[in-house]
Amino acid sequence: MVHNKRFTLGEIATLLNLQLVGDGQCIISSLGTLENAVAGQLSFLSNPSYARQLKACNASAVIVEAKYAASCKYNALISKTPYVSFAEATALFDDAPIREASVHPSASIHETADLADSVYIGPNVVIEANVKIGETCSIGSGCFLGENVELGSNCDLHSNVSIYHRVTIGDNAIIHSGSVIGADGFGFAFDGEKSVKIRQLGGVDIGNDVEIGTCSSIDRGALEDTVISDGVKIDNQVQIGHNCKIGENSIICGCTGIAGSVTIGKHCVMGGGSGAVGHISIADKVHVSARTLVSESISEPGVYSSGTWHMKTSEWKRSNIHFKQLDSIVKRLKKLEKKPDKSSN
Amino acid sequence: MVHNKRFTLGEIATLLNLQLVGDGQCIISSLGTLENAVAGQLSFLSNPSYARQLKACNASAVIVEAKYAASCKYNALISKTPYVSFAEATALFDDAPIREASVHPSASIHETADLADSVYIGPNVVIEANVKIGETCSIGSGCFLGENVELGSNCDLHSNVSIYHRVTIGDNAIIHSGSVIGADGFGFAFDGEKSVKIRQLGGVDIGNDVEIGTCSSIDRGALEDTVISDGVKIDNQVQIGHNCKIGENSIICGCTGIAGSVTIGKHCVMGGGSGAVGHISIADKVHVSARTLVSESISEPGVYSSGTWHMKTSEWKRSNIHFKQLDSIVKRLKKLEKKPDKSSN
Amino acid sequence: MVHNKRFTLGEIATLLNLQLVGDGQCIISSLGTLENAVAGQLSFLSNPSYARQLKACNASAVIVEAKYAASCKYNALISKTPYVSFAEATALFDDAPIREASVHPSASIHETADLADSVYIGPNVVIEANVKIGETCSIGSGCFLGENVELGSNCDLHSNVSIYHRVTIGDNAIIHSGSVIGADGFGFAFDGEKSVKIRQLGGVDIGNDVEIGTCSSIDRGALEDTVISDGVKIDNQVQIGHNCKIGENSIICGCTGIAGSVTIGKHCVMGGGSGAVGHISIADKVHVSARTLVSESISEPGVYSSGTWHMKTSEWKRSNIHFKQLDSIVKRLKKLEKKPDKSSN
Repeated sequence: MVHNKRFTLGEIATLLNLQLVGDGQCIISSLGTLENAVAGQLSFLSNPSYARQLKACNASAVIVEAKYAASCKYNALISKTPYVSFAEATALFDDAPIREASVHPSASIHETADLADSVYIGPNVVIEANVKIGETCSIGSGCFLGENVELGSNCDLHSNVSIYHRVTIGDNAIIHSGSVIGADGFGFAFDGEKSVKIRQLGGVDIGNDVEIGTCSSIDRGALEDTVISDGVKIDNQVQIGHNCKIGENSIICGCTGIAGSVTIGKHCVMGGGSGAVGHISIADKVHVSARTLVSESISEPGVYSSGTWHMKTSEWKRSNIHFKQLDSIVKRLKKLEKKPDKSSN
Repeated sequence: MVHNKRFTLGEIATLLNLQLVGDGQCIISSLGTLENAVAGQLSFLSNPSYARQLKACNASAVIVEAKYAASCKYNALISKTPYVSFAEATALFDDAPIREASVHPSASIHETADLADSVYIGPNVVIEANVKIGETCSIGSGCFLGENVELGSNCDLHSNVSIYHRVTIGDNAIIHSGSVIGADGFGFAFDGEKSVKIRQLGGVDIGNDVEIGTCSSIDRGALEDTVISDGVKIDNQVQIGHNCKIGENSIICGCTGIAGSVTIGKHCVMGGGSGAVGHISIADKVHVSARTLVSESISEPGVYSSGTWHMKTSEWKRSNIHFKQLDSIVKRLKKLEKKPDKSSN
Repeated sequence: MVHNKRFTLGEIATLLNLQLVGDGQCIISSLGTLENAVAGQLSFLSNPSYARQLKACNASAVIVEAKYAASCKYNALISKTPYVSFAEATALFDDAPIREASVHPSASIHETADLADSVYIGPNVVIEANVKIGETCSIGSGCFLGENVELGSNCDLHSNVSIYHRVTIGDNAIIHSGSVIGADGFGFAFDGEKSVKIRQLGGVDIGNDVEIGTCSSIDRGALEDTVISDGVKIDNQVQIGHNCKIGENSIICGCTGIAGSVTIGKHCVMGGGSGAVGHISIADKVHVSARTLVSESISEPGVYSSGTWHMKTSEWKRSNIHFKQLDSIVKRLKKLEKKPDKSSN
């Protein structure tokens, strides 16, 4: 982390609306973990099990709950939610490029497109007919926005994002490079010999405050729209099939694959590399662990998993042989159970 | 689904070559599912188990087999294959942009490239030496076509597709944004310390009527070509390794990963997130369920699966502990079985 | 494989520093496998179990260890490491386009960028402020290089690669189309209702001799850098989360997903479609088989696996039912074991 950004601790307290305990003139120039932070850095304690690290922590200040203020070696910023305050602090030190309002001359913009004055349009961007882009949006180089795409305000599309026609996106979206929104869902009618394409007539409707990682795919619906609700966060390499509906504030971790027509509730977490077969529903507040395949609907909140743990391959092979034989193993067990019990004779 | 397209039912019957039962002047402006269709929509019945929904369906017309014509509330279109007829109907209502023949001035086209007059070349397309592009192809913005790439006629490449040198693609291909065809296969010779790159000298040979989804990767062969046969449909986020051969009309669902030198037969279905280890063969008409890893060759048609079902994580952990112990569990069972059977004494 | 390249066998012996046995004037125009090679081709024998194919092999020459020279039908090139020599031979016959030093006029290059004279910059490339690019680098069309990106010498970025600000890459990198380096890691602080973005302030530090396949994602670190060490080879469709550290010369096969803050040792192999949960360490020389999820740290070198083998779905369902019941099955077994042993009474 190399920055030129510097704040006094007092400034940070004001910006994040936190109570300061200690020296408000202390200079903070970056952030660090409790374990590795050095002088000039601001750290945070959110997990109480690390509280004993406070005394040894060399950060110039630590964001803590009130009860830990006295344990800080130097200065403290008091927060009811230190991890959220830390998240807010990261915004102060971010050196990602700031895009000034401008339209690069190499962009191809259809005359019917409706762009707010405050937008940034990078080099080689392509914007087709009837596209609408709201205030302070930033469209990175090489992005494609098809006919009738609508973006709310303050969206940030990084370079080389492709958005097909008639996709609607709310405010504050962040979409990372390489992702593709609104391509055809995977639908074919088999005529006995070959697959006849079912044209995908729906769109994609993305709410506010949605983030989508790199190289992810969200397909348009077959007849109705695919829906990504407000506050959903989607990681890299994620596939979301046509007509899925992802509920508010759910989290879809990297490499997850969701087949078509899956409904996922609110505040769910799909762990890394997880998946769901098509045409099922998953209730609110379901957490699915890494690599779990959800193979039928889940109606109760809770934590779910599938798969087996890693083992030394030699031992795993033996377990796998027995897995294939489980049916006969259980039959052998049943046979033993049916033997007359001599002890009771 | 928002369209300006409207047809009379009679027009649709003629276009799809179906028998009309009812009012040919009835106006159809969109398509709907049997359950949700409203007046002005055309629906379809393909799965007989939904036949009882016909009487309640509010669609202005339904595509059905002849035996269900009398059950339709309003009008019917008679088809021997209603789902295929529905697929054909979707093409009538598709509002995806139509690309007029033109070459955008920002495209970089090598003087030796051979482009049919009817092609559309979008903004910022790059076409290198000796590329050949057939009639009515559409090349979306930002696509790259390397030296000696050949496309047949009527291919549709969406924005930001990358095709390396010497890839050959037949007629009617659809390739979605973000996909990469013909990059180097993953091959190295280990010299005892580091990996020495094996240059990938083969190409990729893609047949007719192939569709490839978003963000998919099809690698070029090491010495010979990677082959994707006629009619193959590949979804999003799919990886196909060097020297694979995918047989005619096979379906590769999203997030599938196929290692190098795998031969897959005709009319196979690789379910979502499935995979195959390298250097194996899979027979014709093999269906593999979602997330299945094919870990050795399959010589018989049929349906195959691997993995375990999702469970509550607390219960899954107990099953997993026992999975690791299966070898000792079976030994315990054997020991019990070897006990003399007192009842026969 | 179609080439115009031709060498005499003597020339190849000299170029690869191998001993020639036979006719140095023999013309070699391409490479072939031991099984399929024809006259005019050069083949190789690296796996001794194929030695009996030597006598029937029609290649004009074969790269072999000294002890097999006499078994070759025609000519031989003697190597201590035939597979490595074969890898070197592929470079002789590669017809991938050679990029001459030049800057395409459509590229957008910031005035503060520092480009070596020998670089190739393709059409529509975007290079932002303070980027440094070393000698003989080739940047394919449509690539984006954000502020303060640094590339060493001899790097080859194929078309449509996106590299975010402040990513550092060493010498000889090969990065294939569609990949994205340095996008935000997936980090949020949950405030009880919604996810607050944790800005990702770290960078990505990539060593020398690294190859990255198509459509792969390597995220920037949260506070410190994500690190990809010298000699690491990464295949297509791979996800590497923020703050991972991948050790020297490790191999990450296609479709692998590695969560955040994972440390992988040197000379590891992550098989195709494998994965690792976050915040774990994997020792040097660990090999993980295809589709294995590493669910906790591995401290010993060796081969590890997870998952189950594919089966006919009907049988697999029965095994899966029993997998879910394993805990009760083991209890039943225990109950049987506790029965008094009559034979000893």
